[in-house]
Amino acid sequence: MSVLIIGGNGFLGSNLVSRLRETGRQVRVLDRLPQRPDFDWRGIDYRMGGLDTTELLVDVLDGIEVVYHLASTTVPGTSNQDPVFDVTSNIVGSLNLIAAMSKVGTRRIVFFSSGGTVYGVPQSLPVTESHVLRPISSYGVTKVAIENYLLMYQQMGTLDPLILRPSNPYGPRQSTAGIQGAVGAFLGKARQGQAVTIWGDGETVRDYIYVDDLIALAIKAGLSNACGVYNAGTGIGLSLNEICALVREITETELPVEYLPARKFDVPKIVLDISAAQRRFDWAPGVSLQEGLARTWDSLRTTA
Amino acid sequence: MSVLIIGGNGFLGSNLVSRLRETGRQVRVLDRLPQRPDFDWRGIDYRMGGLDTTELLVDVLDGIEVVYHLASTTVPGTSNQDPVFDVTSNIVGSLNLIAAMSKVGTRRIVFFSSGGTVYGVPQSLPVTESHVLRPISSYGVTKVAIENYLLMYQQMGTLDPLILRPSNPYGPRQSTAGIQGAVGAFLGKARQGQAVTIWGDGETVRDYIYVDDLIALAIKAGLSNACGVYNAGTGIGLSLNEICALVREITETELPVEYLPARKFDVPKIVLDISAAQRRFDWAPGVSLQEGLARTWDSLRTTA
Repeated sequence: MSVLIIGGNGFLGSNLVSRLRETGRQVRVLDRLPQRPDFDWRGIDYRMGGLDTTELLVDVLDGIEVVYHLASTTVPGTSNQDPVFDVTSNIVGSLNLIAAMSKVGTRRIVFFSSGGTVYGVPQSLPVTESHVLRPISSYGVTKVAIENYLLMYQQMGTLDPLILRPSNPYGPRQSTAGIQGAVGAFLGKARQGQAVTIWGDGETVRDYIYVDDLIALAIKAGLSNACGVYNAGTGIGLSLNEICALVREITETELPVEYLPARKFDVPKIVLDISAAQRRFDWAPGVSLQEGLARTWDSLRTTA
Repeated sequence: MSVLIIGGNGFLGSNLVSRLRETGRQVRVLDRLPQRPDFDWRGIDYRMGGLDTTELLVDVLDGIEVVYHLASTTVPGTSNQDPVFDVTSNIVGSLNLIAAMSKVGTRRIVFFSSGGTVYGVPQSLPVTESHVLRPISSYGVTKVAIENYLLMYQQMGTLDPLILRPSNPYGPRQSTAGIQGAVGAFLGKARQGQAVTIWGDGETVRDYIYVDDLIALAIKAGLSNACGVYNAGTGIGLSLNEICALVREITETELPVEYLPARKFDVPKIVLDISAAQRRFDWAPGVSLQEGLARTWDSLRTTA
């Protein structure tokens, strides 16, 4: 079976590439960026490019049975600065991909949506997949639109889409620059002996999932014949202050905190209900936050 | 008070212009097309143009307190032919408008969304505003995205948006070309002594609202300080076959029907729950379908 991973050079993408290769699948990657240096790319058919034209994508899809779509040109914290760019790159890019899949006849797509942004401010916790979608960032608005297009083409009979809504993944190869979530940023600061920056009072609660657990679900779900929408988290919520305390313990650093005013596009508290994915895919997250943080810290210390 | 009506040359737009002018408001229109000939444009500040650039819109918004946004470059039946055009014209156009409003400081916007497409295939009837949004046409997907952006900027504190989700409006100046709904198309065919075309078996159910009732709600709601989302229909469902029978009665024509295969993007049955708008705006639809059809038929016969 041949699998295409769009955004395969990223944090989640490269972890997915690694696991799929181990299981003997032929893996092709499409990514805008050149190959990251902290990963072994042997055996991977790596193509540089984006979702700009259907014609290019038709070529990239040749022989592909399953598409994993993890590409995004924005992150939640930056998407509101230029919503037009968010729309024209991410929604239009995904429509180009859908059109190319339809031309080639590839029906299966696994889309990485966003459990942390599509729901907006939750009305109740934990949040199930049927919760109203009221995003408060452009990132969330465009994810909802792409989900809706995928489900629409399922209704039209041309796609078999599976949509994952991951909470906050963390783990090896996560960026430490601060744009891909708190865990990576905090561990990066701990390594450099610097202070971390927190918007708000640190009581913002998120559902953190170790990357291996998320990737295991993505593979089980993607290679099943299930369609529809599934949350992908742990069902456990922790505050940023609690994460800081854990990072201090594991890294044995002081990790001072600088508190800044809260940002309006940050959801105060979100924890996902993951019972649908647990039931449907006989899956459960297995790595505790303590263990996941320790593994990520080890990985960070042993790489450049 | 100065009001801008974007899409003011259209069926709903021109009816809104007419009613607002009667109430003494200063009305400016922005529309891509030149002034329609079957309307008296005296006293209206008519500007030709679209939503292509924020700069142009800043000029058009000068002195405006309330914006009515009725513009759409697509209709439900055609939107799936080119979803990229739907996204780049309608979502991006609306983002340009939002950016211009933010620059000028105009906070109030009334957006005409779509009660017939944003919900997709209803899970239960009548449909309330909190029903899950699962559109099955690109038209519906882009309306949901624009709604989400408006509500997001409300959350950010820069807009006071009111979103109407009209069901199937009909009445004078509705197109008889068949792209703006069954009533206009059927009456047009009756006038020409031709057969009507129905996709499916004619048992498709819709909630038809007379244009004056919808416009009365749009004015009451728009000039209130309410924000949020409101269905705008009658709460009464009729099948296409029932509409045909009524049109035959009123027009005293045979109106033969040609049945074609059903279209996948048509929702089989939808009726809106309008209790939220009734309660909030002390409003109720007052024109029965019989009377509305008779008025529309009179108007059609007395115009060229």
